[in-house]
Amino acid sequence: MQTTTYADDSLALHTDLYQINMVEAYWADGMHERKAVFELFFRKLPFGNGYAIFAGLERVLDYLKNFRFTESDLAYLREEAGYKEDFLAYLSIIKFTGNVYSVVEGEVVFQNEPLIRIEATLAEAQLIETALLNIVNYQTLIATKASRIKQIVKDDRVMEFGTRRAQEMDAAVWGSRATFIGGLESTSNVRAGKLFGLPVAGTHAHSMIQAYKDEYEAFHAYAKRHKNCVFLVDTYDTLKSGLPIAIQVAKELGDKINFQGIRLDSGDIAFLSKEARKMLDEAGFPEAEVVVSNDLDEYTILNLKAQGAKVDAWGIGTKLITAYDQPALGAVYKIVAIENDDGHLEDTIKISGNAEKVTTPGLKKVYRIIDRENGKSEGDYISMADEDPASEERLKMFHPVHTFVSKFVTNFEAVDIHTQVVRNGEVTYKSPSIQEIQDYSKQSLSLLWDEYKRSLNPEEYPVDLSQKCWDNKMRNIQEVRESIQNFSNK
Amino acid sequence: MQTTTYADDSLALHTDLYQINMVEAYWADGMHERKAVFELFFRKLPFGNGYAIFAGLERVLDYLKNFRFTESDLAYLREEAGYKEDFLAYLSIIKFTGNVYSVVEGEVVFQNEPLIRIEATLAEAQLIETALLNIVNYQTLIATKASRIKQIVKDDRVMEFGTRRAQEMDAAVWGSRATFIGGLESTSNVRAGKLFGLPVAGTHAHSMIQAYKDEYEAFHAYAKRHKNCVFLVDTYDTLKSGLPIAIQVAKELGDKINFQGIRLDSGDIAFLSKEARKMLDEAGFPEAEVVVSNDLDEYTILNLKAQGAKVDAWGIGTKLITAYDQPALGAVYKIVAIENDDGHLEDTIKISGNAEKVTTPGLKKVYRIIDRENGKSEGDYISMADEDPASEERLKMFHPVHTFVSKFVTNFEAVDIHTQVVRNGEVTYKSPSIQEIQDYSKQSLSLLWDEYKRSLNPEEYPVDLSQKCWDNKMRNIQEVRESIQNFSNK
Repeated sequence: MQTTTYADDSLALHTDLYQINMVEAYWADGMHERKAVFELFFRKLPFGNGYAIFAGLERVLDYLKNFRFTESDLAYLREEAGYKEDFLAYLSIIKFTGNVYSVVEGEVVFQNEPLIRIEATLAEAQLIETALLNIVNYQTLIATKASRIKQIVKDDRVMEFGTRRAQEMDAAVWGSRATFIGGLESTSNVRAGKLFGLPVAGTHAHSMIQAYKDEYEAFHAYAKRHKNCVFLVDTYDTLKSGLPIAIQVAKELGDKINFQGIRLDSGDIAFLSKEARKMLDEAGFPEAEVVVSNDLDEYTILNLKAQGAKVDAWGIGTKLITAYDQPALGAVYKIVAIENDDGHLEDTIKISGNAEKVTTPGLKKVYRIIDRENGKSEGDYISMADEDPASEERLKMFHPVHTFVSKFVTNFEAVDIHTQVVRNGEVTYKSPSIQEIQDYSKQSLSLLWDEYKRSLNPEEYPVDLSQKCWDNKMRNIQEVRESIQNFSNK
Repeated sequence: MQTTTYADDSLALHTDLYQINMVEAYWADGMHERKAVFELFFRKLPFGNGYAIFAGLERVLDYLKNFRFTESDLAYLREEAGYKEDFLAYLSIIKFTGNVYSVVEGEVVFQNEPLIRIEATLAEAQLIETALLNIVNYQTLIATKASRIKQIVKDDRVMEFGTRRAQEMDAAVWGSRATFIGGLESTSNVRAGKLFGLPVAGTHAHSMIQAYKDEYEAFHAYAKRHKNCVFLVDTYDTLKSGLPIAIQVAKELGDKINFQGIRLDSGDIAFLSKEARKMLDEAGFPEAEVVVSNDLDEYTILNLKAQGAKVDAWGIGTKLITAYDQPALGAVYKIVAIENDDGHLEDTIKISGNAEKVTTPGLKKVYRIIDRENGKSEGDYISMADEDPASEERLKMFHPVHTFVSKFVTNFEAVDIHTQVVRNGEVTYKSPSIQEIQDYSKQSLSLLWDEYKRSLNPEEYPVDLSQKCWDNKMRNIQEVRESIQNFSNK
């Protein structure tokens, strides 16, 4: 571990300064223990994809369970940030005591639906915002990118190779976990294997060839100690040197090395993979795999496949672990209700010139509406908490912006996609194994029509508001408009 | 801290599996203690920028100092990864015993020059590759992005706001440290403030307005407890509600709140900032600042400035902390020499069809060539370790690919840009304070002509090879070609 960190380093300070400033104001005003409801959601699916894969819950729960300001945190706030003793005394005893409802990891999720709903004191809910977004934004982004890649490669094996280009160490390990949730087969990061039980894979690098000078010596040295050898063949010249020497060593050592295949890491992969396949087949190794790497992503893979590349397994690094073409998911965390002076929850709204950015007020639930006849999902349906769509015979679903786009569904199942994961501050949810999460994700994806899963121009999956939810939103907008008008008239 | 991690979690496993596999082969072959020289460098400057700012050394040194396989690491390698006891016995005693030469944090650096040179046993040098790249690639990328932004904003204040969109937690804290090295004024991440001594800044969010329903109440509540208030004015309607209410509260509370200004987080920033400036001036607050945020980067800032936006301080999040337009630096770590059977260092080379990817063999040094007359840098000069450019009267510098592009320099100073930071495994370098690093970086940048510092189409800064270095490279290429030819003829 880093020795520059404090022995009692905690993640409570892993927040934006303004959160602490706001909590100080709430506390000074006696507002801090009012019950508040916040929702975490994103407005736009990443990569132009038709769905996202939720990830990050395990880390979120661990963070909430351990949420405390430690001695060194309080000392820092006192001495460096200038907070006063009275407020620090409050921070020293705060912990998370609220309720959390969340979709589970691996769940297929969509734009504008609450992924996590927090019901807690205003102070607690505010302090945890930044860390929750930091965790969920990244892990969900990477699980989604991995799932996109899996849609393109289908049954080919995909290995995560990205640690050296990841955005620092947490991204490397939590990112590789997210790629597994999204459907990948393995990671190269050994620590991620240890921490999360992920399958780990890898063979050797160019430097080994260089250390021995010569591919023949290097492959022999590697095979002396290892089975399932995948020889890297592009250090000097793939077709004239690396490949023929790999084949020669495989023949010489026969069964002893259990020759698994070769890896190409540069050059024209479409051409070289076909040549490699031919040479391996002719040499009597039809089972030997062609593994490729080198700045791959779903776009290059699609093109390589279109050119007839003969590839059995893909090693994907930079473009997956950083989500290179869109390295941030814009999830936000918005207050939707707050306890008023009478002790009742009252809706809140944030207005914007941009219609998509107006929040949807109130305590809500999200149902996945599944057609009982074909087992496919018809869309997601956001209702007020006191509604029960399952009791309806015939459900009207309409687009939350283009409201004239609507349909009626009958003979459906309405599945609440949230699970209560924290009750009065106690974590009540036990994360499944990483393999179970991956399996769940595949099952969740199987509810979707293929039209939502294609990587280019997918159909827009409906995420609709109930009529009550819509009416409530319109009423809230109207109230804000009137109050602005009243102020302007003063 | 995460409770899912092991009590003795170490970063020794934060590596690619193939590194451990290669080390096993070296160890089995008696090669593991041969002295090897590796260089860490990148081939291409990020963002089309004319320079990069090096960062990551502090974390690298801490990693090297603590490099050990712990009990739980060894147990994992034994039980899950299937390594045998004899090899694990070796891993259990390995630590880093080599020498490290590095440029210091904040240094201006360029393509194809070694940023870090590692001289260690082959096994040690191999095992640390992945973590070093993971650290340096990200931190250098972000310091460089921050520096680019500073070139555009000039003397305006820039605040780092990106934690919620950072690629997990390490990226948030080490990234904000890197933005400070690159010249920023503050971060919003309180933990980064605590860990690294960074200035921390922030006021309040939309949720505070919503919790109070009303901007008037919320601004008052905030000002009751805080000075230097910056009021966020776009929750409902910037010009009709947020701004006039902020001004009203500032007037009512007078000096008591030390009104610092307002923040705009949505809408047309060019237009709104000018309107805000006008309203603040007319209300008698010419000192009040206009702070803006909302998906900014150097390109939007340049455009906003061109449109006459009136902005005093910029809050930059997503696009800085993720280096959105190029979220990875492609630094690599290549072996350049290895001890041979006679105990002498012998050069190694990696060939590629792409001329830029052929490595430059041998133990080398990097000098910054500074013109004594104007104090500006003429370029960087890579020589073999036994050369001394300072002893030359007249130095020939030529482009390492387009060799006909050359010049002679006289009356120059040749400054070795590396510092020995680790000697026989002991860290001998003490990191300066973060403010000293930022100051050093500014000074290092001042050696560059403006032509290298502009953000669009900068001049290419010369990073040249000595004649001896070039001849040596050509000889190594020739030798590899001959050995491939010999193999093909067999």
